[in-house]
Amino acid sequence: MLFQEQVRKVKQAAPKLAATTNEQRNAALTAVREALLQHQAEIFEANKQDLAQAEADGVSGPVRKRLKFDEGKLRDVTAGISDLTKMEDPLFQTQFARELDEGLVLKRVTCPIGVIGVIFEARPDALVQISALCIKSGNCVILKGGREALRSNKKLFDIIHEAIIDAGLPADSMMQLEARSEINELLECHESVDLLIPRGSNAFVQYIMNHTKIPVMGHADGICHIYVDKDADLAKAVPIIVDAKTQYVSACNTVETLLVHEAIKDQLLPMLKEALDAKKVELRGTKDVAAVVDCVPSTEADDKTEYLDYILSAKTVKNMDEAIDHINHFGSHHTDCIITENPDAAEHFMNLVDSAGVYQNCSTRFADGYRYGFGAEVGISTGKLHARGPVGLEGLVSYKYKLYGTGQIVDDYASGKKQFHFKNLANER
Amino acid sequence: MLFQEQVRKVKQAAPKLAATTNEQRNAALTAVREALLQHQAEIFEANKQDLAQAEADGVSGPVRKRLKFDEGKLRDVTAGISDLTKMEDPLFQTQFARELDEGLVLKRVTCPIGVIGVIFEARPDALVQISALCIKSGNCVILKGGREALRSNKKLFDIIHEAIIDAGLPADSMMQLEARSEINELLECHESVDLLIPRGSNAFVQYIMNHTKIPVMGHADGICHIYVDKDADLAKAVPIIVDAKTQYVSACNTVETLLVHEAIKDQLLPMLKEALDAKKVELRGTKDVAAVVDCVPSTEADDKTEYLDYILSAKTVKNMDEAIDHINHFGSHHTDCIITENPDAAEHFMNLVDSAGVYQNCSTRFADGYRYGFGAEVGISTGKLHARGPVGLEGLVSYKYKLYGTGQIVDDYASGKKQFHFKNLANER
Repeated sequence: MLFQEQVRKVKQAAPKLAATTNEQRNAALTAVREALLQHQAEIFEANKQDLAQAEADGVSGPVRKRLKFDEGKLRDVTAGISDLTKMEDPLFQTQFARELDEGLVLKRVTCPIGVIGVIFEARPDALVQISALCIKSGNCVILKGGREALRSNKKLFDIIHEAIIDAGLPADSMMQLEARSEINELLECHESVDLLIPRGSNAFVQYIMNHTKIPVMGHADGICHIYVDKDADLAKAVPIIVDAKTQYVSACNTVETLLVHEAIKDQLLPMLKEALDAKKVELRGTKDVAAVVDCVPSTEADDKTEYLDYILSAKTVKNMDEAIDHINHFGSHHTDCIITENPDAAEHFMNLVDSAGVYQNCSTRFADGYRYGFGAEVGISTGKLHARGPVGLEGLVSYKYKLYGTGQIVDDYASGKKQFHFKNLANER
Repeated sequence: MLFQEQVRKVKQAAPKLAATTNEQRNAALTAVREALLQHQAEIFEANKQDLAQAEADGVSGPVRKRLKFDEGKLRDVTAGISDLTKMEDPLFQTQFARELDEGLVLKRVTCPIGVIGVIFEARPDALVQISALCIKSGNCVILKGGREALRSNKKLFDIIHEAIIDAGLPADSMMQLEARSEINELLECHESVDLLIPRGSNAFVQYIMNHTKIPVMGHADGICHIYVDKDADLAKAVPIIVDAKTQYVSACNTVETLLVHEAIKDQLLPMLKEALDAKKVELRGTKDVAAVVDCVPSTEADDKTEYLDYILSAKTVKNMDEAIDHINHFGSHHTDCIITENPDAAEHFMNLVDSAGVYQNCSTRFADGYRYGFGAEVGISTGKLHARGPVGLEGLVSYKYKLYGTGQIVDDYASGKKQFHFKNLANER
């Protein structure tokens, strides 16, 4: 079958999946959980082959660590599925109900987005999490995982797919891509795919965003900032900066640029330099910074660089508004933090910085669905439409307007024969 | 100043406007209302010149009617502004608050989208409505109205702009484009503009969607359907179909295709034909339809055509699912209706049809922000992300996550030294 036809079949399945009840979708999730546990030996075997191949191919340690799918990962994902079955149905929720006139009732009711394409890194547990979120939210999903996880993903997909079919969900609710070349074909399917969620490198996400008419949710780069205010508690500032830089250096929510109020640079920078040296972080700085501590001279390019490495660039600012302007201009609207003991300064910063996450006195590394208590997430969005920040179940839901009439025509209202009376009704399911 | 630089200034004003209070924005709206009333003679004079020019240029009657801005229109828009000032602040609303751990509080708080570009038809009252919605929601706006309204729009923009500056809002909160060529320049400004809302012809909206990286909210075509079920009350069906077709023939929510359950075609079609003839509507039909009533033979092209004219295409279906498949395949996900007395059939149709509006027993012409009781609307969206259907104030709002800490670092949680406790807090402003 041609690729586009296969995707069209997924599109055709979408309304059918959208009409399933929470009980049906929960039963499918339970079946998925049981099937994963029952077939765990096969999954671990497939994963071992992927790991062996990755080692033979010289794949880096961190990537192999993410690739590993063992008892611990299985426990985590099956626990995640159990949690999802306990959650309230995200669909068929009446957001508001209003009687427009006698016998003419408008309701806004939640429904799935439809068909979601997710392109994700070589992490087999991500395949399970994303599939489970899409089943719970009634969305059809087209999955493309990193190639290093090919065998693990194929095994996991087959087990999940069979389980949902046995549980009575449409067979075309799920589709898996295996070849990288299929990504480009997927990008052309704007008539069938409602949303793309790409995860991965900046360049990859940018490529996706620039080569499709399908709406894209996600983030390309993550240039996060910490601004140390003149009213900062420096005993808090140093550990927060070190954590935000080094706790996981290749994450999107890692700090890349430090902005220091000039009034406190002489106290902060020497303390910070010592702490960064202990973690082998290279400090780059402007002349003002270099006047206080030893550092590599920074250039304008540093303002725009996501290092994903043990490098931090620092510059001084005359006041908070200069810091805010810098962040809004050079940042990626992901997560930015102010260190201050002054609540008014914090509120000013948080209201004016145009980012998905605006923090006071804590590490930028907290920007994560799990740490926000959302359970699993499908990604982090730096866009301002629909979902922003970490995206969980709620971000996979849309709504439709249902209007129940008894023969009403518009001409009666346009001519003045009838009038709307707009009475809000109590929400009901 | 270069165009891109001007737009960048609007972007820079956005965080400042976002930080204004409801009182400041309401005061600006009141100032706008007073300025419009005070300068009404100048506005009417500019509008008279536009109308004279339009007549000289042979612009059609309906377009000239929309172009007219008289006492009645002024009364409507100033009343709309008064209503907006009475509405609750859409910004700074805490959607949820959660203590992640002792002294670490997460809040999700509404904020403006940022910079919105609106390209709209030659309707001076639309300029006032859109400006007022953007002021209330703290969004900067770049306006481009239809060229026939050039003088009226310039006058209105200058009055509104001066009023908001006097009221203390940033001067760069608003910008007006006058030349059509500037639209293409605007489409390039994806680094400064957060959202485009184009209104106008199908081809125009499609052009915008295909030539920019800026997210676009709106709809291109509006191919709306009415499905007459076997359990329909035909006494309701006929007036609803006639209203949906003829009440305002060039609107996007006008019905274009009628799907008739074959079990009732012999009763419905002759009644309908008589009613359509009385309104001079051309009926096009498949062979099955032609076997019952006189009609122009329809072709496959009719399934995909938005006539915007006194033409209705009709075909028969064997059952409801065939109607649903037809609508999901050929429709534009705008507004589709079922005529039936059977509530289960209605619910099935409404759950499976993938459209912003799904109706039972009423005219598709009800799809409109005013008729839904939303007050003014900026447009109707057929996309499924962010706002769907008629878009009012709520659709112009995003949110950000504010995280208030007291020195927390992620490493303490990753190492197991500390645990999150996720306590939801009562919402507060």
